[in-house]
Amino acid sequence: MTTTLTNRQVRLARRPEGAAKRDDWQYTDEPVAQPAEGGVLVKTLSISLDPAMRGWMNEGKSYIAPVEIGAVMRAGGIGRVVASRNPAFAVGDAVYGTLGVQQYALVPQEEIKRSGLVKIDLEAGTIGQWLNVLGMPGMTGYFGLMDVGLPKAGETVVVSGAAGAVGQTVGQLAKIKGCRVVGIAGGAAKCDWVVKELGFDACIDYKAGPSAVREGLKAHFPKGVDIYFDNVGGEILDTVLAKLARGARIIICGAISQYNNTTPVQGPKNYLSLLVNRARMQGIVVFDYADRYPVAIAEMSAYLKDGRMKSREDVVDGIDTFPEALTRLFTGENFGKLVLKISD
Amino acid sequence: MTTTLTNRQVRLARRPEGAAKRDDWQYTDEPVAQPAEGGVLVKTLSISLDPAMRGWMNEGKSYIAPVEIGAVMRAGGIGRVVASRNPAFAVGDAVYGTLGVQQYALVPQEEIKRSGLVKIDLEAGTIGQWLNVLGMPGMTGYFGLMDVGLPKAGETVVVSGAAGAVGQTVGQLAKIKGCRVVGIAGGAAKCDWVVKELGFDACIDYKAGPSAVREGLKAHFPKGVDIYFDNVGGEILDTVLAKLARGARIIICGAISQYNNTTPVQGPKNYLSLLVNRARMQGIVVFDYADRYPVAIAEMSAYLKDGRMKSREDVVDGIDTFPEALTRLFTGENFGKLVLKISD
Repeated sequence: MTTTLTNRQVRLARRPEGAAKRDDWQYTDEPVAQPAEGGVLVKTLSISLDPAMRGWMNEGKSYIAPVEIGAVMRAGGIGRVVASRNPAFAVGDAVYGTLGVQQYALVPQEEIKRSGLVKIDLEAGTIGQWLNVLGMPGMTGYFGLMDVGLPKAGETVVVSGAAGAVGQTVGQLAKIKGCRVVGIAGGAAKCDWVVKELGFDACIDYKAGPSAVREGLKAHFPKGVDIYFDNVGGEILDTVLAKLARGARIIICGAISQYNNTTPVQGPKNYLSLLVNRARMQGIVVFDYADRYPVAIAEMSAYLKDGRMKSREDVVDGIDTFPEALTRLFTGENFGKLVLKISD
Repeated sequence: MTTTLTNRQVRLARRPEGAAKRDDWQYTDEPVAQPAEGGVLVKTLSISLDPAMRGWMNEGKSYIAPVEIGAVMRAGGIGRVVASRNPAFAVGDAVYGTLGVQQYALVPQEEIKRSGLVKIDLEAGTIGQWLNVLGMPGMTGYFGLMDVGLPKAGETVVVSGAAGAVGQTVGQLAKIKGCRVVGIAGGAAKCDWVVKELGFDACIDYKAGPSAVREGLKAHFPKGVDIYFDNVGGEILDTVLAKLARGARIIICGAISQYNNTTPVQGPKNYLSLLVNRARMQGIVVFDYADRYPVAIAEMSAYLKDGRMKSREDVVDGIDTFPEALTRLFTGENFGKLVLKISD
């Protein structure tokens, strides 16, 4: 019966300059095809909107190939198997994978591994949580904090983008590991939520004034910052660099403040603080930890169940809103993990 | 008899703006005093002139307190004990310590530890070598490369300031550990020496043109750089960042290109290469490894004896030439470890 269905898709029409605009996208409607031997057809339920998507739109070498002009935009998502000619997947299975910004993803056998298609257990977490704490952002936060940050009980941890998907995981996990945690977020509402709901020790509203971050760090952590989980780059990175404790670790996860730049990235001019403080700055890419996702998912789904960890998603409805929904990430309008709902 | 002697000293007259000039220094002549109980009087033979000295002249928090205005300029040096009331030191002993830019250093008992005064064996190396491979620069190179760089045989290593004191140690040590080593130095003479005398695999003359470093790295290490030992910062750091191999380690040892800046330090705008390449940038301060200096000295003096390691010093004669001698470091005029000879 799926043969009569239409698959609406969002394709990259051209490489954006600065922020991606509606004109940078192209909508196509294609008939839904049936899977060949070994393949699977997935109906997309929700997709994840992530800062990294901006990088995928650019030409050039990175940790992953760019999305080609004319191709369906890459996106991780949750779906249901609606047709299967692969014994590993049954009709009705909930799955996670790189489904793309489209209503249906036809995944041929040879693409199953590359698209990371795996069955997921919707008892372990909601669809939103599977795109958040139990998904890529959660895995990024988990392995960045644990493997690169190496937190010890009693240490001081700062996380920027604190109300975002990665930030909320990092801060709550650091609290569970016995650290003192200060978030950095934009606006009083996000800061309140991070402290009152998630249990961070404090949160600095970077929009409160030009010296808010500097003054806040000084007040909360007079002896300096042991671990900084950086999601934003730019001025905030420089400010934290100036407040490092000896032996500090900085996890470079992203630099959302720089992604829409049409000018060169702003390098951290306080990087020599690494020398003075014998500190380390290290980048991570979550895919390197794929073998260990199940361990992290098991640990964090237990925290979700026993209430030690909470999550918040900001759900936008409908594939046609994709361009504007994505923009919210870069303006900081989203509050919680940004999810685009494609169908029920 | 030492009571009739005069001690010529170089003191910091004011905090320099940009490069230190002759007017930033003040000369004083004081009578040489005798040590009190537990103290030692050392006649300075040679002192080490190091890029780090520029930082010590600045106000503000760093890994070590600034030199106060009016104080004798801090410097590590080699001397001979000429009077001792401490059983650990005998007249005639050769010693290393923070002697300062002066002809005689009176080290009271309570200062012996802080000034790092230790007996040295002039059989293990010459005075020049004790300020070079066996001294602070050598220790910096050794522990930076071994503890932070973690070199493995077959890996690619780039070192800037290759003909300088730290650089020559790092490059030769990396060769001994089985790495492929490219130096970066200013001018054909330094590059020739680094390759022909020290056995580096290649050396890039950064003065050869604006794209010399980029083109050179591409030609020598098409698969990227595993370890970069950074003594210079600035453009060269950015260029190497753009050529990292996956899992690369950058040792931040200094940033001589930035020390005389009157404008803000230039941050590495390519720092997001750390993310793409899962790479690490870490600062080191040699004093942290003081407990292990003897191990490194034993290893490297063996290399000097069996000819696997060579050293070159650039010796300038006379305490009165101190201001101009120091300047040579920042113009790159020195060729080899810069040493100021104070007396025979």
